[in-house]
Amino acid sequence: MRLLTAALLCLPVLAAQAETPSTLLSPELKAQAASLQAALATDDTAYHLVESLTTEVGARVAGSEADARAVAWAEKHFKQLGFDKVTLEPVRFPVWRRGDIRISVLGDSPQSLHAIALGWSKSTPEAGLSAEVVAFDDLDALSAASPEQLQGKIAYVSARMEKRRNGGDYGRRVAARSSGAEIAASKGAVALLIRSIGTDSDRLPHTGMGIWLGGIKPGTPASDRAMVLSNGERVALTAVPAAALSNPDADQLSRLLKLQPKLKLHYQLAGQYVGEYTSHNVVGEITGSTKPEEIIVVGGHLDSWDVGTGAIDDGAGVAITAAAVAAIKKQGLRPARTLRVVAFANEEQGVWGGKAYARAHAAELANHVGAAESDFGAGRIYRIDAGVPAKDWPLVQEIQAALDPLNIELGGQDAGGGADLSGMRDAGVPMFELLQDGTDYFDLHHTDNDTLDKIDPAALRQNVQAYATFLWLLGNAPQRVQTNFVPTPTP
Amino acid sequence: MRLLTAALLCLPVLAAQAETPSTLLSPELKAQAASLQAALATDDTAYHLVESLTTEVGARVAGSEADARAVAWAEKHFKQLGFDKVTLEPVRFPVWRRGDIRISVLGDSPQSLHAIALGWSKSTPEAGLSAEVVAFDDLDALSAASPEQLQGKIAYVSARMEKRRNGGDYGRRVAARSSGAEIAASKGAVALLIRSIGTDSDRLPHTGMGIWLGGIKPGTPASDRAMVLSNGERVALTAVPAAALSNPDADQLSRLLKLQPKLKLHYQLAGQYVGEYTSHNVVGEITGSTKPEEIIVVGGHLDSWDVGTGAIDDGAGVAITAAAVAAIKKQGLRPARTLRVVAFANEEQGVWGGKAYARAHAAELANHVGAAESDFGAGRIYRIDAGVPAKDWPLVQEIQAALDPLNIELGGQDAGGGADLSGMRDAGVPMFELLQDGTDYFDLHHTDNDTLDKIDPAALRQNVQAYATFLWLLGNAPQRVQTNFVPTPTP
Repeated sequence: MRLLTAALLCLPVLAAQAETPSTLLSPELKAQAASLQAALATDDTAYHLVESLTTEVGARVAGSEADARAVAWAEKHFKQLGFDKVTLEPVRFPVWRRGDIRISVLGDSPQSLHAIALGWSKSTPEAGLSAEVVAFDDLDALSAASPEQLQGKIAYVSARMEKRRNGGDYGRRVAARSSGAEIAASKGAVALLIRSIGTDSDRLPHTGMGIWLGGIKPGTPASDRAMVLSNGERVALTAVPAAALSNPDADQLSRLLKLQPKLKLHYQLAGQYVGEYTSHNVVGEITGSTKPEEIIVVGGHLDSWDVGTGAIDDGAGVAITAAAVAAIKKQGLRPARTLRVVAFANEEQGVWGGKAYARAHAAELANHVGAAESDFGAGRIYRIDAGVPAKDWPLVQEIQAALDPLNIELGGQDAGGGADLSGMRDAGVPMFELLQDGTDYFDLHHTDNDTLDKIDPAALRQNVQAYATFLWLLGNAPQRVQTNFVPTPTP
Repeated sequence: MRLLTAALLCLPVLAAQAETPSTLLSPELKAQAASLQAALATDDTAYHLVESLTTEVGARVAGSEADARAVAWAEKHFKQLGFDKVTLEPVRFPVWRRGDIRISVLGDSPQSLHAIALGWSKSTPEAGLSAEVVAFDDLDALSAASPEQLQGKIAYVSARMEKRRNGGDYGRRVAARSSGAEIAASKGAVALLIRSIGTDSDRLPHTGMGIWLGGIKPGTPASDRAMVLSNGERVALTAVPAAALSNPDADQLSRLLKLQPKLKLHYQLAGQYVGEYTSHNVVGEITGSTKPEEIIVVGGHLDSWDVGTGAIDDGAGVAITAAAVAAIKKQGLRPARTLRVVAFANEEQGVWGGKAYARAHAAELANHVGAAESDFGAGRIYRIDAGVPAKDWPLVQEIQAALDPLNIELGGQDAGGGADLSGMRDAGVPMFELLQDGTDYFDLHHTDNDTLDKIDPAALRQNVQAYATFLWLLGNAPQRVQTNFVPTPTP
């Protein structure tokens, strides 16, 4: 390999590359990364994994019978992928179940609207409730409303999320879903209704958590909405029933409200805690040859919502990262560091798997020298970001150079990592993000439409090529990325 | 106008036009058509109509309370549009209602599938049925199956419809929906399941009639599926319960069947006749000035399926044709012939409105000198076809020349007209078709997704321009198109 590379360096077309000589990663390492990319250009292992998971297990909401089938699936397939170790690590959490929902327009234009309960919504009275709707352009407007406006009413937030490659509008809009019920309840509203946090035009509403886990503070008086877990932790249902309309139904309701400002809805939904459940993070690894104690973690989450089959959220992430780690061993390569893939349990309802991992591995997090989660669909990766100390940025630049043939650009220095990595990030583990094109992600996110047919096998291959490249180079870089790194807060 | 045209004819750039002088339609008529097009280029009357219908009435399945609201809506809006006459003509038909449906996979990969009952499906036993699935690539394969293969099984037809501008693949695929149950039953199957006759990838299955009205012959012994109407006509439910899976669910079932060839489903649906109902065709007209007895009919159907709000099927058709007729009067023009717009009742479940119109107007059909239905969505019109005697084709050519600025080409001589016109066609009424781009039509057809947001207001305006042009020219052409025309059968 060295001979070949030396020969290549004599060619004038490589002058630009020669001007910024790579000093951190050996030509051999980079050649091996290129070989991995070449081998993976036609390897559909990841697609077969996500096909198998979404077909044979299907939807796998946390705490369901399918949760257990998903864990068994991951254990079996991780073993088949040839990992050196496969372990199950318990993750305990409360189980919420949705029941039926019916939301319909009363008055002169009676019709039913397509809606879905938000995660952890409380129930309406069994017969439902009938109340006037008060519409707000966005959550700020709801927050600014007076209790006089909302007492006994249904609060409706009509803001529409915009489509962006990086999903950038999600952050601006999702608080309507996660805080709207609490705010509406504080003003005396009897229920919350929001336009789906989604960018499609299908009559398939988007679910997602209706309350932040931190939303109910320790010491809050017990009530019909709170549940105390066996470990003493307290969780709570939404303060009032909370649901999302599909975009076409939100359009419809907004039009009807213009015609009939005093419009009433009948609003009926069921949702409740049904107990606690122990699921598992499924952890597979290739043990490092010379620095086995230094660990790089990649992964995705194994659970899905109960509506789609969790192809893009997040079967793809599990499949991409597992296939990438496995490919390294399959190609006869052995990394210096340990490469670990985690299929996290129950991300959707509060990052329970991610938190459990950080707790269980607290003692070794100082030796976690990098982590990246794939949890933004199955679109092509277009950029690498990293959250590392400045002294380690040149290594990121060299890794990006190896990703460049995959059309992956160098990005920013403020990578936050995925949701399941938050515990690791807080412990100072260096974060990496391989950013996927998420233009269509929020068309499908948390809806029935999250199914296998939405995945482009070619894009999935590119993802695996990128992760394998990243893992191989970070897993063998002579330089160890500094841990216990506290990123500069974003201004 | 004549002076202007004479002046224009002197210009050399118009030489081509001068070479094929228009002899049938006066320059004045054509100038008026051009003025109509200009005025309608910015006129959103049709959009406001379909917005109002789909918002205020919503879904309006035949025989529902919304059917009556739709008729009242049409009567009111036709009057507001300034028609000289608005009449309601009774249309009586049986009423079928769907109940709940649950289709789920049994065995090692338990999961529910998104399905919808086909129109006029009979019920399963109340607790549902559980049976093995036997898959067929298409209806021909099902037709060729032996009773041994199907006895006690669920017949599943997996053929996928292809996307075409003219919807051309619908004809090839729809028989699985309309005849599949009968064929499956004849071989001892206990239920029919088909892939939706649709071209999308949404988990919103497509409904549509599961039986042709002619499917049960007079003299067939009475059974639990037949109902005798008050006029003595006999109708029947499907021979076995019949449902359609969404495309992603059909993909899923096909994948599961490859893994588990003996796969069983639990299959439960409800559907029944709930009586008879009298709805109405709503007929509006501008009475002709000099030849009022000669009638040109346009229209669409007022009913929708029960799932979407019937924006493209067929609120758009009613709106386009009503707006086009109204625009002529609004522009201060008066046609020689009577222009009539019909909002037909209950097209979806057997063309009851179209047949009732042909019966009620049998005596004057010889004076119906042209008919066109808009029932293929809201896409731009790209072509005009006509079913007229050869001697009248030059008139069609001249009408097309006036449509050419709207990017509408001359088409074929075998226009069949829309479904609601079949009775008129059989009586020899000349048929016209303004063909719409239906590339996306079968993404939405008969699904929850048939909603207002799918309509492009600009495309709708082009439709109205085209219909107004067509109506004005045919309504004033000196030559009367020959009626009692028997088209040459398509080979």
